[in-house]
Amino acid sequence: MTKSTHNNAVLLMHCPDQQGIIAVITEFINTNGGNILYLDQYVDRVNSVFYMRVEWDLDKFIIPKEKINDYFNTLYAQRYNMEYRINFTDRPQRMAIFVSKMSHCLYDILARYTAGDWEVEIPLIISNHTDLQDVSRQFNIPFEVINITKDNKVEQEAKEFELLEKYNIDFIVLARYMQVLSEDFIHRYPNKIINIHHSFLPAFVGAKPYHAAYERGVKLIGATSHYVTTELDAGPIIEQDIVRITHKDTVADLIHKGRDLEKIVLSRAVEKHIQRKVLAYKNKTVVFA
Amino acid sequence: MTKSTHNNAVLLMHCPDQQGIIAVITEFINTNGGNILYLDQYVDRVNSVFYMRVEWDLDKFIIPKEKINDYFNTLYAQRYNMEYRINFTDRPQRMAIFVSKMSHCLYDILARYTAGDWEVEIPLIISNHTDLQDVSRQFNIPFEVINITKDNKVEQEAKEFELLEKYNIDFIVLARYMQVLSEDFIHRYPNKIINIHHSFLPAFVGAKPYHAAYERGVKLIGATSHYVTTELDAGPIIEQDIVRITHKDTVADLIHKGRDLEKIVLSRAVEKHIQRKVLAYKNKTVVFA
Amino acid sequence: MTKSTHNNAVLLMHCPDQQGIIAVITEFINTNGGNILYLDQYVDRVNSVFYMRVEWDLDKFIIPKEKINDYFNTLYAQRYNMEYRINFTDRPQRMAIFVSKMSHCLYDILARYTAGDWEVEIPLIISNHTDLQDVSRQFNIPFEVINITKDNKVEQEAKEFELLEKYNIDFIVLARYMQVLSEDFIHRYPNKIINIHHSFLPAFVGAKPYHAAYERGVKLIGATSHYVTTELDAGPIIEQDIVRITHKDTVADLIHKGRDLEKIVLSRAVEKHIQRKVLAYKNKTVVFA
Amino acid sequence: MTKSTHNNAVLLMHCPDQQGIIAVITEFINTNGGNILYLDQYVDRVNSVFYMRVEWDLDKFIIPKEKINDYFNTLYAQRYNMEYRINFTDRPQRMAIFVSKMSHCLYDILARYTAGDWEVEIPLIISNHTDLQDVSRQFNIPFEVINITKDNKVEQEAKEFELLEKYNIDFIVLARYMQVLSEDFIHRYPNKIINIHHSFLPAFVGAKPYHAAYERGVKLIGATSHYVTTELDAGPIIEQDIVRITHKDTVADLIHKGRDLEKIVLSRAVEKHIQRKVLAYKNKTVVFA
Repeated sequence: MTKSTHNNAVLLMHCPDQQGIIAVITEFINTNGGNILYLDQYVDRVNSVFYMRVEWDLDKFIIPKEKINDYFNTLYAQRYNMEYRINFTDRPQRMAIFVSKMSHCLYDILARYTAGDWEVEIPLIISNHTDLQDVSRQFNIPFEVINITKDNKVEQEAKEFELLEKYNIDFIVLARYMQVLSEDFIHRYPNKIINIHHSFLPAFVGAKPYHAAYERGVKLIGATSHYVTTELDAGPIIEQDIVRITHKDTVADLIHKGRDLEKIVLSRAVEKHIQRKVLAYKNKTVVFA
Repeated sequence: MTKSTHNNAVLLMHCPDQQGIIAVITEFINTNGGNILYLDQYVDRVNSVFYMRVEWDLDKFIIPKEKINDYFNTLYAQRYNMEYRINFTDRPQRMAIFVSKMSHCLYDILARYTAGDWEVEIPLIISNHTDLQDVSRQFNIPFEVINITKDNKVEQEAKEFELLEKYNIDFIVLARYMQVLSEDFIHRYPNKIINIHHSFLPAFVGAKPYHAAYERGVKLIGATSHYVTTELDAGPIIEQDIVRITHKDTVADLIHKGRDLEKIVLSRAVEKHIQRKVLAYKNKTVVFA
Repeated sequence: MTKSTHNNAVLLMHCPDQQGIIAVITEFINTNGGNILYLDQYVDRVNSVFYMRVEWDLDKFIIPKEKINDYFNTLYAQRYNMEYRINFTDRPQRMAIFVSKMSHCLYDILARYTAGDWEVEIPLIISNHTDLQDVSRQFNIPFEVINITKDNKVEQEAKEFELLEKYNIDFIVLARYMQVLSEDFIHRYPNKIINIHHSFLPAFVGAKPYHAAYERGVKLIGATSHYVTTELDAGPIIEQDIVRITHKDTVADLIHKGRDLEKIVLSRAVEKHIQRKVLAYKNKTVVFA
Repeated sequence: MTKSTHNNAVLLMHCPDQQGIIAVITEFINTNGGNILYLDQYVDRVNSVFYMRVEWDLDKFIIPKEKINDYFNTLYAQRYNMEYRINFTDRPQRMAIFVSKMSHCLYDILARYTAGDWEVEIPLIISNHTDLQDVSRQFNIPFEVINITKDNKVEQEAKEFELLEKYNIDFIVLARYMQVLSEDFIHRYPNKIINIHHSFLPAFVGAKPYHAAYERGVKLIGATSHYVTTELDAGPIIEQDIVRITHKDTVADLIHKGRDLEKIVLSRAVEKHIQRKVLAYKNKTVVFA
């Protein structure tokens, strides 16, 4: 839907902190004719790690796009012991949405998508139920029902992999998808599966967090978006927010009030991911502004 | 310091929900010449419990103050199976503050007290360290050092009880007091000991919550004020709030940012308690507006 | 879409404050077999005005539905000098949405509507542009294009009135409708037109508030939903909220960040209106919990 | 009170955006033996202005402290057309507090100061009333009463200048000081006078903002800290925040609830100023993280 008209490179990197890295990298870009559009860096002084995101315009960059990675790797990455990715903005990422029965997160994502707010393609919705098929029809997006039970998880996930391959999917958004993915699945998409959990993690891990919040008598409820790892609800947190409740709120009220929180928190995380502004490292995230 | 000039009665009650309770109680007050200044009620329809707070002016109330409780008990409380308290605002409650080494909550409370914001008396500060003795001198409030160790807890708490008796203390505020009270202590002051825990409970119960929050990589930190019960950090929550943090914040930053949160959340809870607007019931609180 | 299965009456009222009103009204309901499901009241002691919202189940109420208003008027409203409305929940209200070119508020409303979150009917969308016709088709709701210019406002609004009559519309939501309604229009729908203004009113009244916010260098931007009155952006405020921004945000960023704020603030206000929990009085609102 | 043990230089600068500035400046610091402890930069792409804050350890820096400014000016500032300041952290800044009758902001500042939270000296409190003299005594800080009327402003401000000189004051905090300073006064301390205004500016400029907020029926109240300029309440905003209110809140409630907001918002701004993280430019501020 949204074709990017930009021709930029985005470098996301971290390495052991050393003096002069910014200087060296910005000089590399400047010298070769790149125009820096964005630079944000952060030094974790506790662990001596340097993080940076740089985006530059490739229009007058003299190194050919397909060779940038090689050059960068040879000249800097090895020398500074970097882990890094260089992505290009001329091809929008391709995102699959996994859903179950609740529509609020799905609608929120598709409304943004349709309005052209995000530079992304959404060619595929997968669900373990048929409930939201009508929503997919409204937005004209293929909807695949893959029913999951304890007994058929291996085969059904195999079907999902096929679909994800077929549609060339870069990352997955679990928009209130009520299934736990297998370890195999999670390992195939490291820091590429974004989940929304309906609590202020690490409080109320697992099922029925609103019921647990009601029982505990909290005065705020939260929602947390994070990358899925093999430990349930324990992956790197991308975004969290809360809303105030009172003693008057029943479990049904919490579920109702939580929906707005869930959709906004999930969409904020997805947006940052699309913009390649999230750098996951050791079960935490650096989220660039 | 602040002597109340009001001559009001405050009824806090709950009972099984039945039709007509508001009508009956407001008629009781009106008929006897009381002028209702505040009425707030709430029905927990899940558990069928009715909660109410009514405050009325006693100036023209024809039932003598010392007999109001008797009359109310005979006429209504037994009939409706109420649990209730009637308090009078002409005598400010007396509050003791327990502290250890950190001053921010103590200063916040004493600044409000000195400014006359609260109808309360603060005749006593107890600490297990001498660090904040100077603060007590600034505000001219007796400061008693009661050193607590594993071995001397029973005797030392006995000294505390004596002081609390001597100073006629109604309720206790733990203003970052770093000791766990004994069960015996807690049982003597049911729903009368207010603690501030420096996390968004039930996340990060126990010691060093900021360190735990840092390790988990949360994007918000919280503070929770609650009544102390015998289970650690598990008592009825009165107030909570949060502040946004980022990947840039170290543990020291969390501690620094958390201080404002702790003091404001604690003071909000203390204020509601002083106003007799908190009704604890089954490990939750009803907090009237 | 959502047919209410409830058979309740909702009384919204205000009158000069007098002792005993709650008692009298709750007794009226109880005595006649009504089961009170909700009661919230508030006394404005500055202006001596009493406000109340009561909702009760009509299933065993012995006064016939069509006579409740008469009885209430004769027995209480005149005696206590009340202004009041009694509404019944068995017929959902009918809401028209006015839009221009931006889809975010429209999608947010229609997603809630389709999910059955609100007891409301939305039979009509009116726009001065064709841009959002596709959205109306997705949700299968009639979309009428009424082009408005300075010169044709009178005739075009006449067409709108016809449509509003034809579709039996109870209230109107301006979901980023970029036209100023005529005084005549506004007078026909007193406290029945809900607008969303993209600033923290009363700051930045009028056009281009995000540009003005950017120029002023504020650190928070806001959105305000209010009932439309003849003075621009000056009607009774129903709901407001804010989001934090920084010096890094351009006008485009403010517009982008503001969209989530606008849609959530508008939907919260519409929800309260649908639940008949908003009572406008003297250019302010009482919003019941 | 707090003597800094750091020996750092802090560069705050802005200039027309050009490629390579970060590289050049970080190389200057690195080459000469400085260890960069903090670097944050921001490019305003709308106006093509580059902003940066760099802090580095001077322990092994080979350029003598007293010559750093000269070198930097000659080598870079002129070449890049910079406006800049280089400050050193070994001498804490000296701050004067101006107050009138309300103590909440003053206590909040002095509590932080006494706890050693801020690297600052507070040698002087000036007031136009005697009300807070006791607070100054509690904290053992000179308190000068300078009564201001319309007729004596010129002479009285002259006395204030003398005191500010005598105490070697670097910047001034108006902690709910209820006087408007003269243009002459303001010109002497450009971006060095921090005020707290008790509204969400630009709403409710001038006197009695809580009364105005009450009249308007807003659902949130705010507080704004800003540098004082000659136009009332129109200077560069450093920090803002809000708190939710309801129809139940009287003007007295707004004043009460606003106090916490005022003190926290003011202290956050003062802290950022002390840390030299605020860069005012064209009536806006860049606030580094």
